[in-house]
Amino acid sequence: MSNAPFTPGQTITMAHGSGGKAMHQLIESLFVATFDDPQLSQLEDQARFYFAEMTGAGDRLAFTTDSYVVDPLFFPGGDIGQLAVTGTVNDLAVGGARPLYLSCGMIIEEGLPIETLQAVAQSMKRSAETAGVSIVTGDTKVVPRGACDKLFINTAGVGVIPAGIQIEAGGAKPGDAILINGYLGDHGAAIVDARGELAMESQIETDCQPLNHLIADMLAVCPDIRCLRDATRGGLATVLNEFAAAGNCCMQIEEQALPIRTEVRGICEILGLDPLYLANEGKLVAVVPAQAVDALLDLMRAHPAGAHSAAIGCVAGAPAGRVLIKTAFGSQRIVDTLIGEQLPRIC
Amino acid sequence: MSNAPFTPGQTITMAHGSGGKAMHQLIESLFVATFDDPQLSQLEDQARFYFAEMTGAGDRLAFTTDSYVVDPLFFPGGDIGQLAVTGTVNDLAVGGARPLYLSCGMIIEEGLPIETLQAVAQSMKRSAETAGVSIVTGDTKVVPRGACDKLFINTAGVGVIPAGIQIEAGGAKPGDAILINGYLGDHGAAIVDARGELAMESQIETDCQPLNHLIADMLAVCPDIRCLRDATRGGLATVLNEFAAAGNCCMQIEEQALPIRTEVRGICEILGLDPLYLANEGKLVAVVPAQAVDALLDLMRAHPAGAHSAAIGCVAGAPAGRVLIKTAFGSQRIVDTLIGEQLPRIC
Repeated sequence: MSNAPFTPGQTITMAHGSGGKAMHQLIESLFVATFDDPQLSQLEDQARFYFAEMTGAGDRLAFTTDSYVVDPLFFPGGDIGQLAVTGTVNDLAVGGARPLYLSCGMIIEEGLPIETLQAVAQSMKRSAETAGVSIVTGDTKVVPRGACDKLFINTAGVGVIPAGIQIEAGGAKPGDAILINGYLGDHGAAIVDARGELAMESQIETDCQPLNHLIADMLAVCPDIRCLRDATRGGLATVLNEFAAAGNCCMQIEEQALPIRTEVRGICEILGLDPLYLANEGKLVAVVPAQAVDALLDLMRAHPAGAHSAAIGCVAGAPAGRVLIKTAFGSQRIVDTLIGEQLPRIC
Repeated sequence: MSNAPFTPGQTITMAHGSGGKAMHQLIESLFVATFDDPQLSQLEDQARFYFAEMTGAGDRLAFTTDSYVVDPLFFPGGDIGQLAVTGTVNDLAVGGARPLYLSCGMIIEEGLPIETLQAVAQSMKRSAETAGVSIVTGDTKVVPRGACDKLFINTAGVGVIPAGIQIEAGGAKPGDAILINGYLGDHGAAIVDARGELAMESQIETDCQPLNHLIADMLAVCPDIRCLRDATRGGLATVLNEFAAAGNCCMQIEEQALPIRTEVRGICEILGLDPLYLANEGKLVAVVPAQAVDALLDLMRAHPAGAHSAAIGCVAGAPAGRVLIKTAFGSQRIVDTLIGEQLPRIC
């Protein structure tokens, strides 16, 4: 992409959101040029796809959305653009869908450097390529200085669910096993670090990664995965509580089985955070039939997105709607949903 | 919907965006209860639809998005919720699509009164019912006081385009006629009025209305409509310039044929605005074969969304890429795309 339409140090002005020449130039020279998609470049008000090109991949359409307001925009290992693509890809993938198309709605604060926007767009493009999705339609709004904090991005996503796949939050059955695909809390810890809230130097990077390829492989080995979610805001504890409530069953996990980096444990101790509630951006929680655990763990650990996968617990019938954790000392406690706020603007 | 979960005067706190109990309560008691859709109430990360239920309506999927940052949130005749549903419905409809499903991504400023959010959600529900669409998936983010101005809403939309419909910005041919479905500039004037920028009392209300029913009727009479867009940001002038550029032809309009309310003309004169560039939220610009004009105008004028429809000009071959207006005095001038900013946060 050529940077010629913009001068070094140029910033976003209100005219870039006006519907006029400046906006067209921003859209064409920055977003369309970077995202490089034939639907987007037509500049129609909507992208269009023949059903015949989609129905071969499955029998259902999946549709989701997320807005991203993370602060700061750039943090160790990632940025808001990567998050905006990957997060929505993952929200499709955990429904068993093959993600296909994303929309991109930008709300930009007047004064944002064009270079910042270019870096974010390039990150979105790279993330879309990694996940195998296309950004096909978009919208750009500019608000006056002070009306938003730098940049918010909304992405919506469309995908196709293969016939026979039926993943539901309420699908867990007593005897099922609970799996995760690696270390917990890296994203939350990386954001804390990026905000300078630590008195120490940390090497923690976000775990932001697309999960759709890993999930497709898992579904090939075990088409009857019961529940699947990515543990973002609210962390592992929140997802397990959602499963327990929806399935009217009890999620029992073992503290010692949880993969948590020593450094993340340290950050949590210093700041009084609980890694069970820390946000992840590349971690899935799966409830699967017990007999599929070995095959799934072998597959997951051999996959780049699941090297540190682990079985962390199992599903019981009672106490229904509860999440219990067996601590390293052998005691058991309830893991409730968070009431207050742990970390604002984490994603 | 019961208001019981909230107390009078209650405001949004950071906990409402945390992923925990407060967020779940907000989503269930406010959004899910108000939008009242079976997909949404399942609280899955994605909505799911069988292709078999969609392909009967057409052969293509349409997908679009828009963010809404209008200031103020409530204005004469409408509000941000109505705009967020109607604007995205219209972006699908001008592609010839039957709009079906919307997503809703809310970015809420800490401190926003719950009652404001309830009023906006109820307006979204009413607008969705009027347009015949469902809000099926959503996301809620809360940012600290000062990080956004009250409330931004993103909606993405999915629809189905009937087989044989091929509407494109570049579809105009010399000899075609240009139609609009009523008064220009009402939305822009209503926003100006709501901001108190007028020294006079105005009765102007937004023209915000869904266009999908009108467009479906127009396509039934004239399946070969060439170009169709809603004249939002940038107004009629911007849409015509897009058609002229994409079709490499000349759009010629007659000033005397343009339906503009006396009051809107007055507001424009006072504030130095041009009604050709004022935003509309319920106005379509259609390029149609000349022989279809009479039948289309009869139909449009009989429709509640088109009572003041008019033929406003025609398509010529040259000067290619230009929009020309013949003034009331018989002279002709070029109508260019706006370079700067006319009105910020109009939608």
